[in-house]
Order: sequence, then C-alpha cells, then structure tokens
Amino acid sequence: MTNLSDDGVKVLLDTANHAVLSTFNPDGTMHSTVVWQERLDDTVSVNSAVGRRWPTNLEHDPRVTVMVMPADNPYEYVEIRGRAIGTTDGADEQIDRLAKKFIGQDTYPFRVPGEQRISYHITPERVRYQKQG
Amino acid sequence: MTNLSDDGVKVLLDTANHAVLSTFNPDGTMHSTVVWQERLDDTVSVNSAVGRRWPTNLEHDPRVTVMVMPADNPYEYVEIRGRAIGTTDGADEQIDRLAKKFIGQDTYPFRVPGEQRISYHITPERVRYQKQG
Repeated sequence: MTNLSDDGVKVLLDTANHAVLSTFNPDGTMHSTVVWQERLDDTVSVNSAVGRRWPTNLEHDPRVTVMVMPADNPYEYVEIRGRAIGTTDGADEQIDRLAKKFIGQDTYPFRVPGEQRISYHITPERVRYQKQG
Repeated sequence: MTNLSDDGVKVLLDTANHAVLSTFNPDGTMHSTVVWQERLDDTVSVNSAVGRRWPTNLEHDPRVTVMVMPADNPYEYVEIRGRAIGTTDGADEQIDRLAKKFIGQDTYPFRVPGEQRISYHITPERVRYQKQG
C-alpha cells in the first residue's frame, strides 16, 4: 500500500492517536520521538518549532518513518515511510488545530516566545497497515 | 544518560508497555514495528523469529532505536538508542515470559511450527527519558 486510502488507516490517523516519528540524526543513527499528527489530504502532517532536533534532522534528510497505534490496541498500527516537506505556512493554525484534537484546547498552550512553528507534510512512499484482533 | 538506571525508566520497561522498535532496512530507510519488551539487567530485550524483517535487518546492522511509552500517558516516554546482539539461547523461555507479561498467558500462543525464536539484547548507547505531567 502506498497511500492512506484504507478506511482503517484513516480512522487511526483521524483519531487522537500519537505518532512515533523517526528521523536520521547527523551521525546516521535514528531519532525517535512522540508527536501529534493529523491527516491532510494524502499526507500525514506533524508540527514542531524551527531549530529543534527532529525538524533539523528533516532539513538535512527528509526521509521519515511514522508509526501510529491506538493507545488501547497496540496490535493495530500503521507504519508510514515517506518524505517530509517543511513549511511555516499555516503552521500556527495547525498547532492550534492539533491542540484541539489532542488536548481539547482551542489554542496551543505551550508556545515559547519567539519560536517559529513549522509543519512537515509527509508524503507516503510505503504504508504498512497491521490489523489484528 | 547512557544506561537504564533511572527508576522512572525501569518502571516504564518493567510495566507491560509496548515498544516501537526501529531498524535499518537494506535500502537505508527505517523500519518501525511494535514489539513486546523486557528489561534484562542493563539491556532492553525483544524477541522475534529468525528470518523476519526486523531480525534480518539487525543481522546486517545492529543499530536500533527503541521507544517505550505508557498507553495512558504518551507524554512520558523513553528513547533508547543502542546496538542489538541476537541469540537463540533462552529465546523460547523469553517469548513465554513476554506472553505472561503482556497477555497473561503462561505459554506464547502464536508459535508457528518450525520457527526458531531469537532474542535481541540491546545495550543502550544513549537513553533519553522524557517525563511530563
């Protein structure tokens, strides 16, 4: 599967399920972290602030692997491999939208003065959907 | 932090929390999957069957990143980067032990006839413990 068209995958992404996002560190090792995610058209989209570790990794190497599983059933999950494109356009609106989705707040409450939010839209190159139970 | 000595990390690993395990595919992309895990002395240890994707990846490149978060609080997690050493010694006993830990069964119920179980003991080279809330 190379896209997000499966209904089960859509539900996984459209629910407030966190993602484990993995990027390449400069030394070639893998960096994994937990992030909010949303589905925008045919991409999975995540948000950070410019200069942090994983956005910086993506600027150097756009290859990324995203794993999303429901908290109440780790035997169902989707692994998405693809490439990320960063943009600050709409990134402030997105972090508010994600705050609404994940913590029920209209405005993201953890903004740091002076930070520039950035969105990464991930185009899937391979989608592996594991459904069990 | 380069070891698992933190009490919070020990609790995360000793609880039945699933791990997202990332390895390198032959083409250099990252493969992520969900696995059972346990802490054995100063290693994180996981189990699979010889010939599957991620064990095969580890035979070619032992570098691995493991992310463990509690199902009820994704804002606390531990990211462990290290190297894995595979061994079939004790692997059958381990998969039963993991079945007990994760699904409460004395014997792993999903054995496939003819498969050879294998353990991977991961020695941490970097441990990042994120505690929030």
